[in-house]
Amino acid sequence: MQWVMVYLVGLGVIFSLIFAYYNFRKGSKMEHGTPTMKDIADSIREGANAFLKREYMTFTPILLVVGIIFGVIFTPWAGVAFVLGMAMSALAGLIGMKGAVVYNERVANEARLGVERKDPSAMGKALNVAFRGGSVMGLSVGGFAMLGLLVIYIVVGMIFQYANPDNLKVTTSIVGLDIILFPQVISCYSLGCSSIAVFNRLGGGIFTKGADMGADLVGKTELGIKEDDPRNPAVIADCVGDNVGDVNGNGSDLLESTIGAVVASAVLPSAIQIASLNTSRPITRELVSRMMEYPLAFLGVGLIACVIGVLYVLFRKPSDKLSRELNISLWSSAAIIAVATLVLSYFFFGDQDLSSVDFRFGWISPWISAVIGIVAGILLGMFAERYTSEKYKETQRVADLAKSGPALVIVGGTSTGWRSALPSCITLGGAIILSSVFSGIYGSAIAAVGMLSFVVATVSVDTYGPIADNAGGISEMTHQDEEVRKITDSLDSQGNTTAAIGKGFAIGSGVLAALAMMMAFANEGNVGGELNIIHYLAMGGAFIGVGIMHWLSGRMLNSICSNAELMVDEVRRQVRENPGIMTHETKPDYKTCVDICTKSAIAEMRVPVFVALLSPIVGGFVFGPMFVGGFLLGTILDAVVTATALANSGGAWDNAKKYVTSMKAKLTKEFGEDRYKEIHDASVIGDTVGDGFKDVVGPNQDIMIKLMATISVIMLPVINAFNLFSLIIK
Amino acid sequence: MQWVMVYLVGLGVIFSLIFAYYNFRKGSKMEHGTPTMKDIADSIREGANAFLKREYMTFTPILLVVGIIFGVIFTPWAGVAFVLGMAMSALAGLIGMKGAVVYNERVANEARLGVERKDPSAMGKALNVAFRGGSVMGLSVGGFAMLGLLVIYIVVGMIFQYANPDNLKVTTSIVGLDIILFPQVISCYSLGCSSIAVFNRLGGGIFTKGADMGADLVGKTELGIKEDDPRNPAVIADCVGDNVGDVNGNGSDLLESTIGAVVASAVLPSAIQIASLNTSRPITRELVSRMMEYPLAFLGVGLIACVIGVLYVLFRKPSDKLSRELNISLWSSAAIIAVATLVLSYFFFGDQDLSSVDFRFGWISPWISAVIGIVAGILLGMFAERYTSEKYKETQRVADLAKSGPALVIVGGTSTGWRSALPSCITLGGAIILSSVFSGIYGSAIAAVGMLSFVVATVSVDTYGPIADNAGGISEMTHQDEEVRKITDSLDSQGNTTAAIGKGFAIGSGVLAALAMMMAFANEGNVGGELNIIHYLAMGGAFIGVGIMHWLSGRMLNSICSNAELMVDEVRRQVRENPGIMTHETKPDYKTCVDICTKSAIAEMRVPVFVALLSPIVGGFVFGPMFVGGFLLGTILDAVVTATALANSGGAWDNAKKYVTSMKAKLTKEFGEDRYKEIHDASVIGDTVGDGFKDVVGPNQDIMIKLMATISVIMLPVINAFNLFSLIIK
Repeated sequence: MQWVMVYLVGLGVIFSLIFAYYNFRKGSKMEHGTPTMKDIADSIREGANAFLKREYMTFTPILLVVGIIFGVIFTPWAGVAFVLGMAMSALAGLIGMKGAVVYNERVANEARLGVERKDPSAMGKALNVAFRGGSVMGLSVGGFAMLGLLVIYIVVGMIFQYANPDNLKVTTSIVGLDIILFPQVISCYSLGCSSIAVFNRLGGGIFTKGADMGADLVGKTELGIKEDDPRNPAVIADCVGDNVGDVNGNGSDLLESTIGAVVASAVLPSAIQIASLNTSRPITRELVSRMMEYPLAFLGVGLIACVIGVLYVLFRKPSDKLSRELNISLWSSAAIIAVATLVLSYFFFGDQDLSSVDFRFGWISPWISAVIGIVAGILLGMFAERYTSEKYKETQRVADLAKSGPALVIVGGTSTGWRSALPSCITLGGAIILSSVFSGIYGSAIAAVGMLSFVVATVSVDTYGPIADNAGGISEMTHQDEEVRKITDSLDSQGNTTAAIGKGFAIGSGVLAALAMMMAFANEGNVGGELNIIHYLAMGGAFIGVGIMHWLSGRMLNSICSNAELMVDEVRRQVRENPGIMTHETKPDYKTCVDICTKSAIAEMRVPVFVALLSPIVGGFVFGPMFVGGFLLGTILDAVVTATALANSGGAWDNAKKYVTSMKAKLTKEFGEDRYKEIHDASVIGDTVGDGFKDVVGPNQDIMIKLMATISVIMLPVINAFNLFSLIIK
Repeated sequence: MQWVMVYLVGLGVIFSLIFAYYNFRKGSKMEHGTPTMKDIADSIREGANAFLKREYMTFTPILLVVGIIFGVIFTPWAGVAFVLGMAMSALAGLIGMKGAVVYNERVANEARLGVERKDPSAMGKALNVAFRGGSVMGLSVGGFAMLGLLVIYIVVGMIFQYANPDNLKVTTSIVGLDIILFPQVISCYSLGCSSIAVFNRLGGGIFTKGADMGADLVGKTELGIKEDDPRNPAVIADCVGDNVGDVNGNGSDLLESTIGAVVASAVLPSAIQIASLNTSRPITRELVSRMMEYPLAFLGVGLIACVIGVLYVLFRKPSDKLSRELNISLWSSAAIIAVATLVLSYFFFGDQDLSSVDFRFGWISPWISAVIGIVAGILLGMFAERYTSEKYKETQRVADLAKSGPALVIVGGTSTGWRSALPSCITLGGAIILSSVFSGIYGSAIAAVGMLSFVVATVSVDTYGPIADNAGGISEMTHQDEEVRKITDSLDSQGNTTAAIGKGFAIGSGVLAALAMMMAFANEGNVGGELNIIHYLAMGGAFIGVGIMHWLSGRMLNSICSNAELMVDEVRRQVRENPGIMTHETKPDYKTCVDICTKSAIAEMRVPVFVALLSPIVGGFVFGPMFVGGFLLGTILDAVVTATALANSGGAWDNAKKYVTSMKAKLTKEFGEDRYKEIHDASVIGDTVGDGFKDVVGPNQDIMIKLMATISVIMLPVINAFNLFSLIIK
């Protein structure tokens, strides 16, 4: 089956990357907008490129050193895989982001042209363009992620034969560490992807939210100008941040989840093989191979299915039903995957002796587990919508509380987020139980693979959001006609809902991926497939794990505050020193704001990233693998509730503000102009608080748990060989 | 050693209760304040009594039914113990609260008399009176908690011989359940205490915060009147709530933690005995007995030491150094305990063969574990102070952020709370690891006992806070001289710090107590001393556990919002319909506000309490004990970070507001009158949000984890006998 897997993944990669290139070129060739539009788009492009350049310049050397260390202590392949992971993640993010920047302008222009031509399907066409822009990121993520993994599989696994079950045994590295080579190498690939993801998400997040909050705090509140008013000096920085954080960061986040899930489920079979050696029914070598290849093949099918799904949306007749348009790509991809992988499961496991593994219903079991993952992913999105959309009562209630002032808006939105965590946790907990009932320990890893198999479609829809948002910004900044802005506003508002759904999905899939890595951790090395949480080292680790996760989150919020304060000062300074800005006589100095955000974001992200990377390592050196197992559990359990709560509180506040704005006429009539302003201000405070919650802290928790789980898997041989606790306490 | 234990506990109980009675009487005999003071105190008393009466009338019948069920399915003793636990907890809370109500007025009056007499030590004397008032609660909590347990121990354990190690074996109850009688009975006693605690804490919390936020939202913001202005109709309800929630609720919370820790550590030896039967070195029966009696004896020593500590503070010459005065009782009690229990440890374990248990350094090991608990408790308090006191930079930073508006105050305060969770988690995780290294699984339960051994001193200091707060309220409402209010303000401000410290301690000790119960759960029945968290049922349970905990917290916040909204409407209505209120011509209708809060609190608390009680039972019936073990872990891990974060965010916001107020002159000079008002308003919004966080959600998480752990231990025999999952999946 090895070749079936290689062909499926290869085809998927080729289709995705060609289609991504096609969509990118198509966007670049589209007509530029008005000269001011082009100007603004150029400023955004410059700012985003400058940030990424600086970020990569700062951190790449450090990461290269890490790669070299891996190469020396494990195997040169580990170092190569780590660097390859970095490269693939960076490439996917970069291309996707450049695509988004190109399309920001084109969507705004498409809306403008549509209104000029009085085209009745103008909105559908603009949506189509925005979605095409998003698909550049979606397709790059899927394509590059699997390209790198495929290369490693072919070179290290097949040519050098390390994926051969005969070679899946403990060997000694050059410095004397006990490792199993192939799992170690692909785990390093996964960590390479994670490292770039955390830089993009966290750096971009601090950048964009500092700019966003800073712009809003002075602009809306003190100067009384609207969001995206070109007189606000921080407005370009805000757009740059959207592209870096919400586009690039989100893409590399999901890329990393996908690779994490696939790698974890490809690592588990080697652990299952080792565990089964001492039993009466040892697992066959062929089955081990198939279980390793199955998740990759599954993703290959996923890529192809998503290409079809995206194609279908792009080439059908555009309609005005925005939400339906976007959902079609998800649903059609998911449906194709569900059918095609049933066949795949039969091919992979139909002829195998499965008595040595926990497949309750034979060959169909892993397929059922994967479908459970797909269904869970869809459910997570639905719950997110129910708690954050202004169509439902939860968000309406938050809006209603604005009548009693900002304090109750905050308390009410917090309550919404917290309560929303339960259905998500039940979905994930239920998915873990069910998928494992069907396919044993392999099941929950495969559920994660299933959930992430339509990642291309998800990321395409996700990226549509910030593209529409920035298109709206550009329309606003270039003073487009009211009709144009109506179109971009509708696209943007739809983007808020897809963002909330996408976040639910990203958190859920990230948690499952981290969990699969943690399972791999517990099944390798001397933790031995069990993690007795009643043991004091594991329990102590769990306590410190939840503590670290909260600390990291608090630290990120602090960074946003600092960056926002800098931005507030700068905006106030420019407006004060240059009175021409407010009278439209002179243009504000956008570049300085971008520079300040760039410097501040890069300075602020160092500490949390290094704490996240080092804490499981230090914990492992002091207390050993039991402690690290508990620690990972703590981080995952903390992240699953907190990230969901933050994402949904933030979404509810955002949409509650929109709801209040939409009720302006009614509220003004009922309470008068002044009271309306008070109510609206209260809702804006909730929205501002939620910005950092939902776009920085939540998503980054999700990345950090994966980062910590992956680094723990990689460092396990080292921790096994040496830890202080086992030296002192026998 | 049984009689040594009985004498120590008996003496401790007698000393505590006599001293509590003495202090209560002394307060009642003190001169009443001015007639208006007495009027207000009477209204508070009436309101508090009415609430408690209604609450107990509503829930006692349900609890009695639960007691009867326990009596039928386990053993009649279980039912009796459950009801006795309820009675002891209710009695302690009631007497302590009545004492607090009496002393509210006396403290205000003492300050007034001191100022009249121009007594230079007026502040010290008022502090002394307030602390004496607090000690009524502290001493009742310790006395009644141990009285009930001692009675059960003597009757069930000694007279009926069920605590005899020969009888610590699995027997079959009348309905065919496998139980070990004595552990089952004392666990039911613990649950009885928990049930009353959750009603007092949650009901009181919703009551008081609804009133508080409602009063502030209309009073401070709309009417522009100060806190505790007698024109505010919700002001009496606020004071009533303080007595019900912060006094009675807090007392029964800590009572429950103490009993939980003692019971869990008395349950563990029977599990250790059963586990050791199949080993080469079975544990001696004498050692099992001693290990069961040791935690009780430890608490007996704790009671006596605290009586001495409290006596010392009350009878030394009063000084103006408030914080030092209060700390003396804690430090002196802790020091006496540390020394006395070293002797105790020697008596209990010095002559025993300890080779069958994990006591690393022989007889001194459990003492070391207990001292680790004491030190951890003190550290938790210190961290809470560092993050919440306006003397330190964290809170000053939150105050500073008020210059950039309310959104950054919220984000900054949230960040402070989240980061503050790490040191607490490290302290607790470290205490778990260290105490277990010294004394095995018994160690972490004994660490909890150690931490709670000076509970009398802690609760006395804790209760001082709301007494001082209400004394300040009474002074304000009765328009006392500026000097008088200065004294009560100082007392109150000191109370805020002690409240933050007390919360850190309550959360930490509650978490350790719940953890000890969870250990007891895992070591009894067929979970069998191990809880493999990698198992899908345990992992699924952990996910759902964190989800439920967040849902409960969100639900509580919602209740506060609803109650606050009702209060806002009522206050607005009264002020509108009765213009004489604002001109001091007519008195507002305080009683209606109290009634609304009472009804609303009782209605709102039903759902969370029943969800907390039923979710582990339902989970157990469906998925069995592995699931429940994971579930409990999830709730504990969620509560330890969230409760700490909420307590410290709330404390930081509260004190940041006080800090802004104290800087009024400076800020007004720098920014002008209008900007100062904006900055102050921003800080008030943080404070209002924090009220519900720190006084309702945080403390109740702490109670609920104990409730869930205890009910799980009790229901384990039932879940073992029947669960759906084991029927379907073999």
